Amino acid sequence: MAEGEGVMSNKQIILRDYVSGFPKESDMLARSGSMGLKVAEGSNGVVVKNLYLSCDPYMRSRMRQLQGSYVQSFTPGSPITGYGVSKVLDSKHPNFNKGDLVWGITGWEEYSLVEAPETLFKIQNTDVPLSYYTGILGMPGMTAYAGFYEVCSPKKGEYVFVSAASGAVGQLVGQFAKLLGCYVVGSAGTKEKVDLLKNKFGFDEAFNYKEEPDLNVALKRYFPEGIDIYFENVGGKMLDAVLVNMRVHGRIAVCGLISQYNLDQPEGVHNLFCLITKRLRMEGFVVIDYYHLYPKFLEMILPHIKEGRVVYVEDVAEGLENAPAALVGLFSGRNVGKQVVVVARE
Amino acid sequence: MAEGEGVMSNKQIILRDYVSGFPKESDMLARSGSMGLKVAEGSNGVVVKNLYLSCDPYMRSRMRQLQGSYVQSFTPGSPITGYGVSKVLDSKHPNFNKGDLVWGITGWEEYSLVEAPETLFKIQNTDVPLSYYTGILGMPGMTAYAGFYEVCSPKKGEYVFVSAASGAVGQLVGQFAKLLGCYVVGSAGTKEKVDLLKNKFGFDEAFNYKEEPDLNVALKRYFPEGIDIYFENVGGKMLDAVLVNMRVHGRIAVCGLISQYNLDQPEGVHNLFCLITKRLRMEGFVVIDYYHLYPKFLEMILPHIKEGRVVYVEDVAEGLENAPAALVGLFSGRNVGKQVVVVARE
Repeated sequence: MAEGEGVMSNKQIILRDYVSGFPKESDMLARSGSMGLKVAEGSNGVVVKNLYLSCDPYMRSRMRQLQGSYVQSFTPGSPITGYGVSKVLDSKHPNFNKGDLVWGITGWEEYSLVEAPETLFKIQNTDVPLSYYTGILGMPGMTAYAGFYEVCSPKKGEYVFVSAASGAVGQLVGQFAKLLGCYVVGSAGTKEKVDLLKNKFGFDEAFNYKEEPDLNVALKRYFPEGIDIYFENVGGKMLDAVLVNMRVHGRIAVCGLISQYNLDQPEGVHNLFCLITKRLRMEGFVVIDYYHLYPKFLEMILPHIKEGRVVYVEDVAEGLENAPAALVGLFSGRNVGKQVVVVARE
Repeated sequence: MAEGEGVMSNKQIILRDYVSGFPKESDMLARSGSMGLKVAEGSNGVVVKNLYLSCDPYMRSRMRQLQGSYVQSFTPGSPITGYGVSKVLDSKHPNFNKGDLVWGITGWEEYSLVEAPETLFKIQNTDVPLSYYTGILGMPGMTAYAGFYEVCSPKKGEYVFVSAASGAVGQLVGQFAKLLGCYVVGSAGTKEKVDLLKNKFGFDEAFNYKEEPDLNVALKRYFPEGIDIYFENVGGKMLDAVLVNMRVHGRIAVCGLISQYNLDQPEGVHNLFCLITKRLRMEGFVVIDYYHLYPKFLEMILPHIKEGRVVYVEDVAEGLENAPAALVGLFSGRNVGKQVVVVARE
């Protein structure tokens, strides 16, 4: 971390090239660069020190060449970008001052120049773990909030199913549904996660989808009356099994399809006829369309956190050099809870 | 048509047994029974003479053994049932009198006893062709109306695509969309139907999907800016091609999936990830949920019909004995426009 005139060495995680199939650690490499910590005159930007970085499933799609998507491809040869929590070191933007804590899109590196800091959220509440702004208080939290309350149209007493239920978003959807008085079942891929769902997050039931020879049978066991709301994080065979178990006028919020992200050709979904017979609404959503609700979300969620009614489990990787393994681990379900990478604690 | 004491011979079309694969004429048979034309004391029913019978794609699903669907299976060995226009010959129900014209569910036979006539609609407007109550003024008309106005949330100027566009429902959806000021393209399976769409129903463009080697390319040709609304009647490969051509916040009303009805295992749909990237809403619906809007629909549609702003094309089969061929023809697209069977004209 040497240097003169405010120039610092800057470790970075670079995407080597576009990726097909399951991403591997070796698709990324660590590189040392250097970076001036002052924003240039005439710029509107801020220079930040990155504290926590977020590993999120949607990042998989950015590893391929995209056209017309709501996200942009990563640039091979350049640092990965993604959500993170950062501290402002220098600012030429009127909304930000040195010392401010922010969350939003930053680089997978020790220091980043954020050229359009308008998209950053300033962190006002610091009596919670700062890493929460990559999870429950950041993009995944808003995703759970918007997806459940705005897309699912939930009502007290309804039957709710959440897949990838111990993940960054799923664990919150289940807790929100319980707060509303719903019956909630989650699926996950290990016994440890199933135990978390039942014992930590308060799901009524949970099951390990990898141990179910027939997902349709599993769903009928937990939902003899059928499913009103499905919060979809995985896609593929689970979606097909859910479709035949939905109740009339059920709703499916399509948040993610992680089982499909590493396939060259996605699996076919065969039971869409259920959309008609059961009059289902299936709706995809993207959290960026809902960020205007962030203040309202914070007002709701902060008291729940502080008073222990909503809990959050993070899987914390220490050190930027471990970020590639952490990201890759999402796609084999290695993480338990929200995957965070600590770059620096302050 | 022999008798004594009001007992008439009664020709009927019987389903022999449950059907797999494409239905064939020989899956049905004509049989002569007899029927008393007086409603028994203590019953609430009506006896009707059937005038026009409706052939509708949803009837395919009733030819198999169904559980928990919104419709019931036909009973092998008994007459097919379906929508029709009928005249009341005798009534023990306070809402109906001898001579009333009604539309609703009746039997594929010359005379039917309707035991629960509450579901029948009384026909008040007879200055339009009576057969229209199997189509534009009946279930398909309400389907087009509810599907387009209630499910699609259409706005002036939007880009609308309709598949099976010359069918009983599609031809109306296209015309409704034009009335609203949308750009409308339809697909159909013959040159004759494509010509109808462009020259009779006023679609902006139309194409023969059977002549398109790549449906994605075809859709891009007609929708260089993408599709806001897809009125889905067919499913399968067309749905996959549409998904990648939808615009952000587009809507897909799932009315039918006729390409799939005769397959033992429906085709897989692979592009559901577009639901997320484009934030699409895909919603199945069933017309029976919207029948409370029927008076409002009539108020809207009757002036359009009488003043020639909305037209309707029927494919009329003469005689009950030709009903099996007419029904079967739906699944090879043999009908041009709404398929009706004339049992009697008065």
